[in-house]
Amino acid sequence: MSRKILVSGGAGFIGSHIVDRLVQRNDFESLVIVDNFWTGLQSNLAHISDPRVHLVQADVETFSTETRFDEIIHLASPASPPWYMREPIRTINANLMGAMNLINKLTPGGKISFASTSEVYGDPLVSPQPESYRGSVDCTGPRSSYDESKRCTESLLFECRRTQGIDLRIVRLFNVYGPRTRPDDGRAVSNFLSQALTHGELTVYGDGMQSRSWGYVDDIVDALERYFWKDDVSYVGPLNIGNDKEIPVIDIARFITELVPGSRIKICPPIPQDPTNRRPDLTLCRQVLPGWEANVTYQDGIARTLQWFRDQVMSGAQTSAPTPVRLAD
Amino acid sequence: MSRKILVSGGAGFIGSHIVDRLVQRNDFESLVIVDNFWTGLQSNLAHISDPRVHLVQADVETFSTETRFDEIIHLASPASPPWYMREPIRTINANLMGAMNLINKLTPGGKISFASTSEVYGDPLVSPQPESYRGSVDCTGPRSSYDESKRCTESLLFECRRTQGIDLRIVRLFNVYGPRTRPDDGRAVSNFLSQALTHGELTVYGDGMQSRSWGYVDDIVDALERYFWKDDVSYVGPLNIGNDKEIPVIDIARFITELVPGSRIKICPPIPQDPTNRRPDLTLCRQVLPGWEANVTYQDGIARTLQWFRDQVMSGAQTSAPTPVRLAD
Repeated sequence: MSRKILVSGGAGFIGSHIVDRLVQRNDFESLVIVDNFWTGLQSNLAHISDPRVHLVQADVETFSTETRFDEIIHLASPASPPWYMREPIRTINANLMGAMNLINKLTPGGKISFASTSEVYGDPLVSPQPESYRGSVDCTGPRSSYDESKRCTESLLFECRRTQGIDLRIVRLFNVYGPRTRPDDGRAVSNFLSQALTHGELTVYGDGMQSRSWGYVDDIVDALERYFWKDDVSYVGPLNIGNDKEIPVIDIARFITELVPGSRIKICPPIPQDPTNRRPDLTLCRQVLPGWEANVTYQDGIARTLQWFRDQVMSGAQTSAPTPVRLAD
Repeated sequence: MSRKILVSGGAGFIGSHIVDRLVQRNDFESLVIVDNFWTGLQSNLAHISDPRVHLVQADVETFSTETRFDEIIHLASPASPPWYMREPIRTINANLMGAMNLINKLTPGGKISFASTSEVYGDPLVSPQPESYRGSVDCTGPRSSYDESKRCTESLLFECRRTQGIDLRIVRLFNVYGPRTRPDDGRAVSNFLSQALTHGELTVYGDGMQSRSWGYVDDIVDALERYFWKDDVSYVGPLNIGNDKEIPVIDIARFITELVPGSRIKICPPIPQDPTNRRPDLTLCRQVLPGWEANVTYQDGIARTLQWFRDQVMSGAQTSAPTPVRLAD
């Protein structure tokens, strides 16, 4: 019961869902959430009243504490291209310097889990992508601060394992969507839903045939929960987690126009270095997490996400970061 | 004449040769060399008496000064696998955090030059490697701290150019050898020469058929001098610089056994993830630096390097880093 857990980026989209799962555990003493509300929203945690939870507003790369943690889950990072492309240095700092800082806050024998990304595969030349695929990332391109900082953080953690023996769990997440995505997130599903519910014009870049593996957040967090703490897994990763049904962007847009009367598609010029395809090879995942599957169909997942976006619009929910307040230390 | 120049890693193998070229210029006021003597040697600069040169013993990632520089050349990094594999965090810090720190020390309109590496191509699937080749690096492998920190530093610099407009020159150096390589450097040429001159047993890993493009330091520094400051070049890189004649490791070893009577080859088990081939596509380099070629043959370059190693052995030269002294600030 004296276990201490830290989650960086816990006010974010995926982070707040992870926190929801963590507070169901009764085997820990305290859960410290470190978030600077850059892309995370304090409102994502407004429903959490567990007295064991402490929210600290801080940059993960400079966060300071004397406490040492048995489990650290490092999620702090923007994940949407417009956000990380605006602040590339900050993106590198959150991922890589964040990880360097957190490693020093592990108890001896403690475990650090890290959310890496399918972006380490870049614009892949093989499909689906197994973990052994070394990727096709332009390390000087406009998406590189995210892709390369995730790659370099994987390197840092594996090299710390090799030289210092730290315990790791590294996942490579494919596209995730669902409730608590920022309406101004800038990626396809949230863009389309926000657009459908406001001016009605869904912007599809290029021919819309670029495909993604859309993972509904509940499915993905099921896998993360099992891999990070619930199952007795010793495999350190990297482990692909995602939905392996590949769906073109245009199909998602069309489906949303069917759900939201009056909305329509607008074709725009393609975005530079937008990957043409992305699909996880889940062979390893199915060995490590037997029985796990991404079961929610895109139709079902998008309908649920649409409902959440509607509720947000109806309630006039705040879409930008709240006024900074230091809540705990 | 008020120009200020900074070189990080200026006491290193390539760094000290760059300093030799810089002091021939009469258009600058001061040249600050930042080196922590991790892999650099103070003795590499012992012959420099130019009063404009200031040697500062400091880690590049934490080096602090109020001075701003018109030209920064960022070379600080170990470059030999046994050195960076021993201290991966320090390797990432030197390259990436070093670059972050140095960017803030540029004058407005100043230029930063960075020595990246052919290791960004990993174990390449195409040969020769053009700059557009995205590489085949295992970002969780034992060489990754070097490869990925160089890749991420390229990303950082290009993203700073995109978002802040900084001026850049990035080179990807292929294998370089020559005088002032540490005898305990650990890479093939220095290993073979040290071994030939001591116990006589040259250790070749695997079948020795892994090939490299061996660039003699004078040739390589000719190109760097032209690209970093001498020629009127605006191309920001990345630019391959190296010798494009690919020679198997075993040929180098055999040649040295011919030069050093009594020395012989010993075959050892292969090293994990030792790239099988590496050869620069120099098409772009020949456009950017017309007329430049790596002209020194490996036979000639190795003979010259052997002579330097012999002189070192004869003079009983110090082969480990000197006692740290803060020389200037």
